[in-house]
Amino acid sequence: MSELEQQLIDRCQKIEAWFRRNLNQYSEHMPFYCSADLRNAAFKVAPVDLNLFPAGFNNLNPAFNPLCASAAKHAVGAIDPAIDRILVIPEDHTRNLHYLENIASLCRILEQAGFSVAIGSLAATEAGQAAELQTASEHGLLLQPLQRQGDKLALADFVPDMVLLNNDLSSGVPDILQNLAQPVRPQPAMGWGHRSKANYFRCYGQLLQQFCDAIEFSDPWLLQPLSYDCGNIDFMQHQGVDCLEQRVSDLLQQIQAKYRQYGVDSEPFVVIKADTGTYGMAVMMIRSVQEVRELNRKQRSHMAKIKGGRVVQRVIIQEGVSTCETWGEAAAVAEPVVYLIGGQVVGGFYRVHGQKGQKDNLNSPGMHFEPLAFAECCLPPISQEEHCNRFYMYGVLGRLAALAAAYEAKQLPLQ
Amino acid sequence: MSELEQQLIDRCQKIEAWFRRNLNQYSEHMPFYCSADLRNAAFKVAPVDLNLFPAGFNNLNPAFNPLCASAAKHAVGAIDPAIDRILVIPEDHTRNLHYLENIASLCRILEQAGFSVAIGSLAATEAGQAAELQTASEHGLLLQPLQRQGDKLALADFVPDMVLLNNDLSSGVPDILQNLAQPVRPQPAMGWGHRSKANYFRCYGQLLQQFCDAIEFSDPWLLQPLSYDCGNIDFMQHQGVDCLEQRVSDLLQQIQAKYRQYGVDSEPFVVIKADTGTYGMAVMMIRSVQEVRELNRKQRSHMAKIKGGRVVQRVIIQEGVSTCETWGEAAAVAEPVVYLIGGQVVGGFYRVHGQKGQKDNLNSPGMHFEPLAFAECCLPPISQEEHCNRFYMYGVLGRLAALAAAYEAKQLPLQ
Repeated sequence: MSELEQQLIDRCQKIEAWFRRNLNQYSEHMPFYCSADLRNAAFKVAPVDLNLFPAGFNNLNPAFNPLCASAAKHAVGAIDPAIDRILVIPEDHTRNLHYLENIASLCRILEQAGFSVAIGSLAATEAGQAAELQTASEHGLLLQPLQRQGDKLALADFVPDMVLLNNDLSSGVPDILQNLAQPVRPQPAMGWGHRSKANYFRCYGQLLQQFCDAIEFSDPWLLQPLSYDCGNIDFMQHQGVDCLEQRVSDLLQQIQAKYRQYGVDSEPFVVIKADTGTYGMAVMMIRSVQEVRELNRKQRSHMAKIKGGRVVQRVIIQEGVSTCETWGEAAAVAEPVVYLIGGQVVGGFYRVHGQKGQKDNLNSPGMHFEPLAFAECCLPPISQEEHCNRFYMYGVLGRLAALAAAYEAKQLPLQ
Repeated sequence: MSELEQQLIDRCQKIEAWFRRNLNQYSEHMPFYCSADLRNAAFKVAPVDLNLFPAGFNNLNPAFNPLCASAAKHAVGAIDPAIDRILVIPEDHTRNLHYLENIASLCRILEQAGFSVAIGSLAATEAGQAAELQTASEHGLLLQPLQRQGDKLALADFVPDMVLLNNDLSSGVPDILQNLAQPVRPQPAMGWGHRSKANYFRCYGQLLQQFCDAIEFSDPWLLQPLSYDCGNIDFMQHQGVDCLEQRVSDLLQQIQAKYRQYGVDSEPFVVIKADTGTYGMAVMMIRSVQEVRELNRKQRSHMAKIKGGRVVQRVIIQEGVSTCETWGEAAAVAEPVVYLIGGQVVGGFYRVHGQKGQKDNLNSPGMHFEPLAFAECCLPPISQEEHCNRFYMYGVLGRLAALAAAYEAKQLPLQ
């Protein structure tokens, strides 16, 4: 067991008591669902991204369907016990059969929680007609056009009591979703059209400080990546790159100092990524200021594009956390992804990549997923089995990451 | 699939909506935990007992530990989110290693839900010293003496925020449990010292009528045992037996009429059991008034004893529901038992008896338990697999039975 795992396990009762208080305090703003990408470098472990519109429910262990259904029932009930009908709005990746499988899994969870579920699609709305699609496992999905009926969103024959977005609204909130009478979760203001990773990690840092104070844990750095935000940058026009170089230099020095403090024998690196949006695009691993200066045209062009093709305006510079996890006999590099519904851990998987190293971004073509018995093992008390200790730690980090999003959302005006 | 299963499945969305409303309405009085004994005669299915102090958590499928922990977290949180420490008070069966195993399983569920747990025992309190006991699986349990610290119940080094009774208080509420500042669940007024099965089944019948009206289900009889209460009876002195004979006769006729209505080719029978207490003692299966008249001394003496050795004062006469369920190659007769925490199904098992018939009481020496993947299958929507449909039906009955106890508790003054 790592020293870090031991420290968290020793504080298990304080940790659980802290979560009870805080989950209750932030319940109104708790993300309906989310997935947290974690990196475990053994000497430290940290969330490096939090997705409020998680795909990948199809990659969870099916043995935990009842836990997912139970968590969904509680999460919906906390919004309004009178909710019976839920409208799911997916991304418009209608050619990505695995994404469609995720939507099928999500709908199944909500149906198993006892709700009536239908799917309304922005693309079908534009096309003016429903689309019948097949998922990777050949499960049929009907994506229907959306309608406005006054201040309500509806399908032709379905007026939902709640709207669940699995579309991250990268391009902003479409008119048809504005000013709805029904509750919409996540709040459209938490879509990538508005949200900032830098702001999220500030929230995470503030919350983590409270957590560490409460559980008497010495150094929050062990549970977070250092992060800076760098104003507007235009990689193609070289605007704002001076600031970027300065921040990269500062951050590498800070990491080096921490590595010295803890006797870590590893080369520091930082990650530069778009401050909004995700999908593993526009992520760059950097080991020196020199590398920032010498970005070639292709790399700069890569950073200037994210989903939707927009030019990156803001970037976040984040401490790189290497991963010590591997999967299988070939020891492919792996990182844990924890899924939560209503702030409760409901499962997780390893994102595995056979062609990447411990310091690389694994969210890239060639990755695959290995479901894990997370939920079983995320629970206290901790047995002496090594994996259980690690999964408890991952559960703690996942819950912190979700709670930080509630902390973030509390600062926004509720729609 | 039986017609009954089909009828419930067809109404699945209405059923789930009804439970959402009612679980919310009765949340304050929902049993912290309970187990419902069901009998499935194919043409009808019904709860025949509800235990508010369930033993047998050790017989649940361990795969559902996370679901149990999650349900316990919600159930405790609904009482007070500030609860960190829970004191469990078991029965004083210190020689029953399986019962101790149940207590160990229960404590584990609460610990996995993130609470600090200790065990305080009435017997250890009388003895003035703690007892270290071993469960059937040689798990060590420490049963400590209880103390009063003003209006709080405590152990020497543990002041709980909540008291969880697994002791059914058959002999009444001891002084040390009176007027506590901490919440006590189940309420001591729901102990067998106070509670009446006849009253419970009246509550169940009233609630079931509301349920059937809401889901447009034709005949509540298909989901309940007809029950009568018969005032005070002294079997040894033959007092009150006239009334008993009359009620048995009436009930047998009513059942026969229903059997005719539904074309059931089976001999009606009734069950006479003590109106309080349980453990399968003082239960008698009766096929005719003649049998009541001809009770021999041994049988009368059997009915006059229940746990604690008291003379039975009140009995309940209930429609006997035969069981169509069997287990294993030998087709041993079986009946489902559903476990709930906070009104949520968390598992179940079959009580199996190789030496009993379809009309017998299976809760008797020689029974054993077979855990089931209840939770998985109790969820809607329903696959075409036969077992899943049946388990969904059992989940509905279990939830109705638990809700009826909330309905019952709501009529009592809260302690």
